Amino acid sequence: MSLDWLHDPAHAIDETARAAALVRQGRLTKPPGSLGELEALAVTLAGLQQRDCPRVDAVQISIFAADHGIAAENVSAFPQAVTGEMVRNFANGGAAISVLASELGATLEVVHLGTVNDPGPLPGVRRDWIAPQSHNFLHAPAMEPAQLQRALDAGRSSVAAAAGAGVQLFIGGEMGIANTTAATALACCLIDASPHALAGAGTGLDAAGIRHKADIVSQAVAFHRAFAIDPVESLRRLGGFEIAALAGAYIAAAQAGITVLVDGFISSVAALSAVHIHPGCRDWLLFAHRSAERGHARVLDALDAAPLLDLRLRLGEGSGAAVAVPLLRAACALHAGMATFDEAGVSNRQ
Amino acid sequence: MSLDWLHDPAHAIDETARAAALVRQGRLTKPPGSLGELEALAVTLAGLQQRDCPRVDAVQISIFAADHGIAAENVSAFPQAVTGEMVRNFANGGAAISVLASELGATLEVVHLGTVNDPGPLPGVRRDWIAPQSHNFLHAPAMEPAQLQRALDAGRSSVAAAAGAGVQLFIGGEMGIANTTAATALACCLIDASPHALAGAGTGLDAAGIRHKADIVSQAVAFHRAFAIDPVESLRRLGGFEIAALAGAYIAAAQAGITVLVDGFISSVAALSAVHIHPGCRDWLLFAHRSAERGHARVLDALDAAPLLDLRLRLGEGSGAAVAVPLLRAACALHAGMATFDEAGVSNRQ
Repeated sequence: MSLDWLHDPAHAIDETARAAALVRQGRLTKPPGSLGELEALAVTLAGLQQRDCPRVDAVQISIFAADHGIAAENVSAFPQAVTGEMVRNFANGGAAISVLASELGATLEVVHLGTVNDPGPLPGVRRDWIAPQSHNFLHAPAMEPAQLQRALDAGRSSVAAAAGAGVQLFIGGEMGIANTTAATALACCLIDASPHALAGAGTGLDAAGIRHKADIVSQAVAFHRAFAIDPVESLRRLGGFEIAALAGAYIAAAQAGITVLVDGFISSVAALSAVHIHPGCRDWLLFAHRSAERGHARVLDALDAAPLLDLRLRLGEGSGAAVAVPLLRAACALHAGMATFDEAGVSNRQ
Repeated sequence: MSLDWLHDPAHAIDETARAAALVRQGRLTKPPGSLGELEALAVTLAGLQQRDCPRVDAVQISIFAADHGIAAENVSAFPQAVTGEMVRNFANGGAAISVLASELGATLEVVHLGTVNDPGPLPGVRRDWIAPQSHNFLHAPAMEPAQLQRALDAGRSSVAAAAGAGVQLFIGGEMGIANTTAATALACCLIDASPHALAGAGTGLDAAGIRHKADIVSQAVAFHRAFAIDPVESLRRLGGFEIAALAGAYIAAAQAGITVLVDGFISSVAALSAVHIHPGCRDWLLFAHRSAERGHARVLDALDAAPLLDLRLRLGEGSGAAVAVPLLRAACALHAGMATFDEAGVSNRQ
């Protein structure tokens, strides 16, 4: 195994299907453009799915859970034990994403990459154990090279399963106490932003906690910057198992021709990492929402991303993406189900 | 019959259920506040529905269709015949709202209040004929007193049916060529705004068309302002059959204790009218989206409304509200279905 697959080309977009969908939108019984972003979504999905009338029936949500050595620096409002506890909560159906996946009829896969407290094997949880946690990146790279490779491959494996199942939309989610700190550090390194501009409350830090978190990120970025010679090395040094898994999943999805709906801050930083590693994967990424986490707007700008929702969500787990799925489904239903002016005998504009 | 019912009190909100829902939100396995507007929605709906765990399963969408005399002033990009043609399209399932209602499993009621070209009786269409169109309000009040009363009653009747069917959410929609002109005039009169600030493209006017529309509205508002002595009279002079029906429906829904999800610009102006007539109905109105129609933001501000979506929709028909229904359903599902920290054995914040 190697990381060579990261550079395989992304799947081609079907410009013919996209153009046909655009023509169809102009014929439907509504003023042109009056369905706003829903029209653009239907047209984009047509190009990605290579069909005039796309569908978002089959959805896979893969949640990657992992602990972070940087949690030792007191950067989270919640104790580190929560990561492992939440793996059990995902499995038992009690987490937000469990509820949302059930409502959507989506396949929910939980991938356990390593937590400090280990709940052991659980039904519905794929155990792809790398280590109890990443290294504390204040003092060392977050991941060994082999750990990074395993994390990227974990994401790729989830997408391979999705491709085999004929999934039309892939959502990645994450759980990992302190992972907004890792995501902030990685984003600062990739887009040369100030840690004090990007660091946010995460699960609920107060102003002093955010300043401390930004200081930690500043020190870490200063320590690693000279060695972060390419996006893969930046990911290894400042990411985490679940962030790398998401980046790997996004790249693999683009290669497999599966549309991705990106969740919030951490997922978007993983997407930023993926796009820096493989710019061709950008076309396959849709963005669900603008999170309340401080750095998200800046990361979305760096991705040239206009998300669908702005509901002050900041939970992660893929939850914001799951909430946005009905918008994609509505876009597809309208595109396929509305009558044209000719079919309905409705007069077009004067 | 009289209009006395307009001033009957709104249904009381259950503050106990609301408070219980707020407590429950704080116990669910997520950082407090991390589900943003979805938490607020669940808590608000609990108070409105008088239950700790609200539901939005049973939805009624009532579309009110009517023509406008002001269409003679060349204020729309589409011919007036479209209103009647779209009534048939609603009935045949080809319109955007037909598709969305089907996707949601919502009851779709079409109320035909009068169109210049009459498609005749149609299956699924309630015929509540007032006149082929309102008067051209450039020269006369849009409605006779008896016509206004019939229109308000038409909205009230739809809500009475919804109440009888145990509906948990009422959506009003509208169809009527030139009705953004009527809505703009009514809003300008109610909140003393400039027609040139509120007039927008409607179904697709160009800049010159918008200036002409604003000029027409300016003349109409100048003609009526001295006589528009109260909100009911403003509605009669500058509204239209379907706008009055929506206002009547919103007031009746508040009286019946049925939550309303308001659609776009025209629906919001009807809501503004309803709130001016009966301030107590405001608590029962949720707002679905910020439309691309120019005046909508100002009208939402006047209603102190923060809508859920901003997708550049501007179709009307209740379509934007229908698109937002899954957000309410997600809020309810999360509120009822997520495990608490105690139930899941997850550690709370440190």
